[in-house]
Amino acid sequence: MTAFAHRLAAAITSRRTPACIGLDPRRESLPPALAAAATLEPKPLAAIFARFCCEVIDVVAPLVPIVKPQLACFEALGPHGMTALAEVIEHARSKQLLVLADGKRGDIGSTAEAYADGWLSGPWAADALTVNPYLGLDSVEPFVKTAEARHAGLFVLVKTSNPGSKDFQDLRCDGKTIYEHVAAGVEQLATRTAAGGRYGAVGAVVGATWPKQLDELRAAMPHTWLLVPGFGRQGGRASDVQTAFHADGLGALIVSARDVIFAHARPEMNAGLADGQWQTAVDRACRDMIERLAADTPAGKLR
Amino acid sequence: MTAFAHRLAAAITSRRTPACIGLDPRRESLPPALAAAATLEPKPLAAIFARFCCEVIDVVAPLVPIVKPQLACFEALGPHGMTALAEVIEHARSKQLLVLADGKRGDIGSTAEAYADGWLSGPWAADALTVNPYLGLDSVEPFVKTAEARHAGLFVLVKTSNPGSKDFQDLRCDGKTIYEHVAAGVEQLATRTAAGGRYGAVGAVVGATWPKQLDELRAAMPHTWLLVPGFGRQGGRASDVQTAFHADGLGALIVSARDVIFAHARPEMNAGLADGQWQTAVDRACRDMIERLAADTPAGKLR
Repeated sequence: MTAFAHRLAAAITSRRTPACIGLDPRRESLPPALAAAATLEPKPLAAIFARFCCEVIDVVAPLVPIVKPQLACFEALGPHGMTALAEVIEHARSKQLLVLADGKRGDIGSTAEAYADGWLSGPWAADALTVNPYLGLDSVEPFVKTAEARHAGLFVLVKTSNPGSKDFQDLRCDGKTIYEHVAAGVEQLATRTAAGGRYGAVGAVVGATWPKQLDELRAAMPHTWLLVPGFGRQGGRASDVQTAFHADGLGALIVSARDVIFAHARPEMNAGLADGQWQTAVDRACRDMIERLAADTPAGKLR
Repeated sequence: MTAFAHRLAAAITSRRTPACIGLDPRRESLPPALAAAATLEPKPLAAIFARFCCEVIDVVAPLVPIVKPQLACFEALGPHGMTALAEVIEHARSKQLLVLADGKRGDIGSTAEAYADGWLSGPWAADALTVNPYLGLDSVEPFVKTAEARHAGLFVLVKTSNPGSKDFQDLRCDGKTIYEHVAAGVEQLATRTAAGGRYGAVGAVVGATWPKQLDELRAAMPHTWLLVPGFGRQGGRASDVQTAFHADGLGALIVSARDVIFAHARPEMNAGLADGQWQTAVDRACRDMIERLAADTPAGKLR
């Protein structure tokens, strides 16, 4: 198998877009056609989440390179939710999508190994995982080792999209913010795992809500894939994320979740559709996102 | 239901020890009597993990107030592991043990809500959860809200036991380390949720490997329960954790995992026992831990 960085670049190039669709199923946001059957009981609700996500996957698989299931949404339903998640991951892979498990995991030593073993082509068989760096670089190391051995990837939190990211990430030490210290560690790991290629197995999460920091971090981490959540609902626009890319249109994955998967709730995407046609709204919203990224960012070079 | 801080204090007082047993099942460390059947297949291995943990629970339930399942060990086995985890949590609760789910979760907004909903008396029905603060205080807030509403608790990572905790946690900003900044935020949350009692719904994780910092953090967070991992194998001794306590013997939970649950591998605990008597080794190691805490820390006041 090819290293994750190469597989990601190939998938982005073949779909000609860096759009990543977040799979964040929520009971209260399901299309009416599914919401009618959505009880509070974990088992049937988990089955509905699986069906919803698999249908979203069927729509977006020809259009985008990668999907990002949000682990919390499935965990919230207990073991039944986790069974649904496994089904969703398997379906995405069967449709030739890359799968980024968004769990923001982090722990020390053999515990980090257990997370890495499970998520990165273990029983969950994801292609990549998001990781939290608070515990330090020795806590990230077991994830890096496993990612390299299994040709998988990591995305380490650097500067997150929420206002509270200022609380600790923005504190300054020796003239650099904490997130810049983390970024320096991530770039070293990316370089170390690049194996002669441009990008390594380790990427970084940087919110779309911070265009200036995105620009600085792109420059500070030339060998690092940037995963950029917060496009759409959280206030980020296509022009805000243009600095996340290298000039050739690669180097960034831009995430949209609710705006695409719950597009039935957006009047402009749902126009003329019946309740049972929510998949068409998803298709329209996904194509709209792809168009906007192509128009306003270097991702246009991929067309 | 009573607030978590009260339930925890009552459980510690009634068992007369602050010992917390970590449930970290590992295939390679199982007692020979179980290891013989331990395959690499997730489903049967998950069933063995559940059986092992439930038998450990049967031994320690009369002795300690709380157990701490390590989510990574179960997640590593995929959905079958998660089903086993639910069984283990249910068994612990049926034996009147408090359950601290060690997942070090953390995310923003509605995603944090989903984690909190699931783990804190949702389908997983844990009494408390460990949380990672890197994303900032607004990312901890949904956990606090849910914990308060459901009389559950949180333990926020402050200063972890691994050497790499120095990488980011020890960086200094405005004369304080990052972990001291986090500690200040945690103490505020503890005070806010104390509802007239001594302790709040929010605790802190501080490694047993840092006696000096433990002392300083005990002083800086008077209303905060300290969860202290790293006792035993990671190099911490009973005398190292004495400063985690208030003078009355409350205020801290001391964690031991491998030294107790895999006590069959310690010659001094396994003396004279056959393979099928590993539970006796667990009993001896658990009592030994309790004795040492009583002898060398203010927890002796609880006897």
